Amino acid sequence: MEEIMAALNVTQKLIRSHLVEGGEMTPGEEIGLKIDQTLTQDATGTMVMLELEAMGLDRVKTEVSAQYVDHNLIQEDNKNPDDHLFLQTSAERLGVWFSRPGNGVSHPTHQQRFGKPGKTLLGSDSHTPAAGSIGMLAIGAGGIDVAMAMAGEPFYTRMPKVWGVKLTGKLPDWVSAKDVILEMLRRHGVSGGAGRIIEYYGPGLEHLSAMDRHVIANMGAELGATTSVFPSDEVVRDFLRAEQREGDWSELKADEGCDYDIHDEIDLSELEPLIAKPSSPGNVVPVREIAGEPLSQAYIGSSANPGYRDFAIAAEMVKDRTIDDRVSLEINPTSRSILESLTRDGHILSLLSSGARLHQAGCNGCIGMGQAPANDTNSLRTVPRNFPGRSGTREDHVFLCSPETAAASALMGKITDPRSLDFDYPHVENPSDPIINTRTLIEPQPVEKARKVNLIKGPNIESLPSFEPLEESFTLPVLLKVGDDISTDEIMPAGGEALPYRSNIPRISDFCFRGVDDDYPQKARDTGDHIIIGGGNYGQGSSREHAAIAPRYLGLRVAIAQDFARIHWQNLVNFGVLPLTFDNQDDYDSLESGDRLAFENIYDALGAGETLKVSVNDGERSVTLRHGLSKRQIEVLQAGGLIEWMKQQGKR
Amino acid sequence: MEEIMAALNVTQKLIRSHLVEGGEMTPGEEIGLKIDQTLTQDATGTMVMLELEAMGLDRVKTEVSAQYVDHNLIQEDNKNPDDHLFLQTSAERLGVWFSRPGNGVSHPTHQQRFGKPGKTLLGSDSHTPAAGSIGMLAIGAGGIDVAMAMAGEPFYTRMPKVWGVKLTGKLPDWVSAKDVILEMLRRHGVSGGAGRIIEYYGPGLEHLSAMDRHVIANMGAELGATTSVFPSDEVVRDFLRAEQREGDWSELKADEGCDYDIHDEIDLSELEPLIAKPSSPGNVVPVREIAGEPLSQAYIGSSANPGYRDFAIAAEMVKDRTIDDRVSLEINPTSRSILESLTRDGHILSLLSSGARLHQAGCNGCIGMGQAPANDTNSLRTVPRNFPGRSGTREDHVFLCSPETAAASALMGKITDPRSLDFDYPHVENPSDPIINTRTLIEPQPVEKARKVNLIKGPNIESLPSFEPLEESFTLPVLLKVGDDISTDEIMPAGGEALPYRSNIPRISDFCFRGVDDDYPQKARDTGDHIIIGGGNYGQGSSREHAAIAPRYLGLRVAIAQDFARIHWQNLVNFGVLPLTFDNQDDYDSLESGDRLAFENIYDALGAGETLKVSVNDGERSVTLRHGLSKRQIEVLQAGGLIEWMKQQGKR
Repeated sequence: MEEIMAALNVTQKLIRSHLVEGGEMTPGEEIGLKIDQTLTQDATGTMVMLELEAMGLDRVKTEVSAQYVDHNLIQEDNKNPDDHLFLQTSAERLGVWFSRPGNGVSHPTHQQRFGKPGKTLLGSDSHTPAAGSIGMLAIGAGGIDVAMAMAGEPFYTRMPKVWGVKLTGKLPDWVSAKDVILEMLRRHGVSGGAGRIIEYYGPGLEHLSAMDRHVIANMGAELGATTSVFPSDEVVRDFLRAEQREGDWSELKADEGCDYDIHDEIDLSELEPLIAKPSSPGNVVPVREIAGEPLSQAYIGSSANPGYRDFAIAAEMVKDRTIDDRVSLEINPTSRSILESLTRDGHILSLLSSGARLHQAGCNGCIGMGQAPANDTNSLRTVPRNFPGRSGTREDHVFLCSPETAAASALMGKITDPRSLDFDYPHVENPSDPIINTRTLIEPQPVEKARKVNLIKGPNIESLPSFEPLEESFTLPVLLKVGDDISTDEIMPAGGEALPYRSNIPRISDFCFRGVDDDYPQKARDTGDHIIIGGGNYGQGSSREHAAIAPRYLGLRVAIAQDFARIHWQNLVNFGVLPLTFDNQDDYDSLESGDRLAFENIYDALGAGETLKVSVNDGERSVTLRHGLSKRQIEVLQAGGLIEWMKQQGKR
Repeated sequence: MEEIMAALNVTQKLIRSHLVEGGEMTPGEEIGLKIDQTLTQDATGTMVMLELEAMGLDRVKTEVSAQYVDHNLIQEDNKNPDDHLFLQTSAERLGVWFSRPGNGVSHPTHQQRFGKPGKTLLGSDSHTPAAGSIGMLAIGAGGIDVAMAMAGEPFYTRMPKVWGVKLTGKLPDWVSAKDVILEMLRRHGVSGGAGRIIEYYGPGLEHLSAMDRHVIANMGAELGATTSVFPSDEVVRDFLRAEQREGDWSELKADEGCDYDIHDEIDLSELEPLIAKPSSPGNVVPVREIAGEPLSQAYIGSSANPGYRDFAIAAEMVKDRTIDDRVSLEINPTSRSILESLTRDGHILSLLSSGARLHQAGCNGCIGMGQAPANDTNSLRTVPRNFPGRSGTREDHVFLCSPETAAASALMGKITDPRSLDFDYPHVENPSDPIINTRTLIEPQPVEKARKVNLIKGPNIESLPSFEPLEESFTLPVLLKVGDDISTDEIMPAGGEALPYRSNIPRISDFCFRGVDDDYPQKARDTGDHIIIGGGNYGQGSSREHAAIAPRYLGLRVAIAQDFARIHWQNLVNFGVLPLTFDNQDDYDSLESGDRLAFENIYDALGAGETLKVSVNDGERSVTLRHGLSKRQIEVLQAGGLIEWMKQQGKR
């Protein structure tokens, strides 16, 4: 790419302006990025705050750090509200903005209140890339990476390839932004974006609002992309003006003549309503192909369809109509402010009148916090993910679709292509005067006041366990072997039962691999140190570092997979688990639970090259494994994980 | 009372017009009542539907039977939505109205849509008496009693005494209906109403709306009263007119010159804001006495403050103000219709704007379905009960108060007498044109269509276990001894963890006495048949028959207490557990866990008189126990419970 560096795309501009420690923008090489803003939510944030406490941080060093409470809103006992109080006092102590429960889902709220073109954002949530909608470089990461960024450290990742997707045309009636990202998933599947940043450009952008772009950038995570990026143009300026922050706008556009590593194009005018069938976001077909299937639930909300428009369109569709007697229409407002605007403009009344259930503002059922569907029934959702069991119901049938498709299906009592309805498309626009309510978004305290804040730690909040580094040489058994596309939802389930233990590693580890291998926690406790074998795209989905920490707590020392999802791979390293891939993919088939693998002088071997040869079952045969670790990451492993490495570096 | 029978009070009129089988209105005697209407909710209703299925009922025989889904609205997995679907199909099958999840809390919704002066209502919920607000005789009972009523059988209870409470004067600003019932609880405590019906009369009624009366009648349950009764007057007519059901109104007033068994009087103008401290509704003091205590939560909603006014007053108080940064203000709308009216009139916007969290319409945190407070913090709630742990948090500190006190405290961040606020009382009225939405209240199917409905039973729904009758003579150990005022919330906890097992007796029995004696289920499984000893007012609170069935399933055969709460006593009998009281209260102190009690020829003894002599520890000593069983109830016990008795009678 050397010759075109003069003409840069938006991604390159964002990266170049934040490169630290003299990195090069060569795809595959590790780069360090200065982080301007961070975002944490409650399900990952308690761990971040415990990590910062362990590091002894006095005050965050970012331009903006915001702690949201949006995941664990169901308070069945004291554990979740205790976490909220711990987060509130931690935020006060460290100079972090605190978004109270009910204030809203982190991604749209951050975009509305803090998002700023040209800035970097690191978030302990895999949907952080949503802020790419307004020209930010927004990346999801494990909690400890975000903790490091809050402490002023750079974020390290491998330079991705830039995938230019040209949008042309204009979406037809009944088709919306969700169908654009579903089309990307239909074409490229759930690992099609691995090692890439998706950059959207072209004349089709003109008709996509900032919140439409949010929908697309948000679910870029489902392609496995590092992030998605949109330019900052007049549409973004309109958005910031409506949010009374026009001063934060700046233009950020690709240079004329710039190029991309990979090319793609979507003619928006040719799209039709799409739907991802159970149980993968990549399982996409046109809605018309499965129209007529029954359903018990239609669900609108989440960071994957967060905007005013996404609720207003559903409201206009069901206005003066009645939802089917057997369908539960679940409305999950994204934030207090959006709920207020929708209330002011009569849309909430339309939804309620039709028979919808209105829930509190937050992530809710998207993360399995309530709204699980009945057994063996279909649920249509505007959320980003339909991994098995993520809804809370083990044998669930969750479909992903647009608000238009969900509302049409709720009215008809069966899966319905909205184009088949007998009324005209009710065009709705985002209001130019949205209600902006910051009463439950608490400003950071001044330093002197902040230093006096005492952290309030409920009885369920446990300190981080500390971990020993791997020996030079060791022999370990394979305890578990799993197939392709195992998500972090399967490694470390969310939902109302497990999530309240997010601040308690010993307790939450009991839920590891539930639904995949219910006996894993007990077997791990019996066996001790062990190896797990994964298929392709291992660890896709949520950024939760618990999916690394909890198995590590149970004795996971080496994870071998066909390939890893980026964030999970990084989380494994951060907590001292050695992630390896097969040099020869056939070896995935040859290894089984119970096999014993012998590793010799690993640190020398890791430093010497990209492969490791390990002996299976006392020399019966050997397999060659690969690693993609940087020198820094080998040091992290040698220290036993990032926290120990930090201590050894004397960085804090 | 013979000489005054010519001049009847409202209670006597209601009872006399529904007496069956020639009963006499002599306090303490068993009477049978014809039941016109029934109400079931989901936490108790699945058991009712299973019981009706076991009986083989074809169609309900009442004027109105309505099944509400208001308790188990949090769907963490398939169990609750499976129950909803089972209830919906059962209601369709049996000709029962079905109120879908989100349609509203049973008590206010029933009053609004079906309540009719002069009628009887039996409900499997202890707050059923709320409908006494409009001149109904509304009684809470165990599920199987309600099932019997749905099948056309009379409801048997002992004729209560009638307690006339004369209301005079008018409530001052900042004082509302909740303070009236808190005053009753302050005066008389949680067992002050045992064996009584409370009838309100006098000039003070004029200024209490039907929903204000609902507040008072609802929490009559907390006094242990059989029910509470108000006359049907012009205020009730206004209420029914606003609900577009004026045709259902009829006048029902006490005859001039009538009398009451007990007399009381409250001058409304002398009341001040009151509050029940943790952890009993009877622990009432003036708010000013504890003003200044910190709090983390203020909670508005539930059937104990369900009306439009109760939310609107809070909305007007917080309008253009901000709730304290550390207080979570929880708004729990009572029904879809009330939420719609509040939305239309701008009150929801005022609440949201102040920082409140808006939840779906339903019972919610009142039954421990979410909204548990943080550990070791105070929560102020407008709900009817603050029994230990009912909030979901084991070590909770829940206070009961009016919406005025809750809203004032949320604004100030500490417990606050609303009279101390620096603004005027914002008088609000119920609207004369409330929104009435019946889109999620499903009408009964015609018989022929109903017969074709298939019940949908999720995998968690288990049939009722069958129970053996007590032997003639037996010796059993005391397994558990507890103190006074043990509620059914303590015998059989609700909350998000236990409630999803309401259709599964074997599983829910694991939660019995959790928080009182966590080892009870295991000890009971190890021991087998056993006895429990209770103090005064044993089994107060919720009507849940699970508090009888689950211990019975674990081997409870005899319960001995100083005295019993009415509904629980009846539930024990219905499921074949022998309830006894001490002839000499000192014997409560003399019996301990591990003592073995020998019963001889009990059926003869029960039939022969009111006492039983039992031998303790192989004749070491003896104690005399009393029973208050009718001949019919002795037969029920001899059969092993009501279902078996019904079968033996060949009634079905």
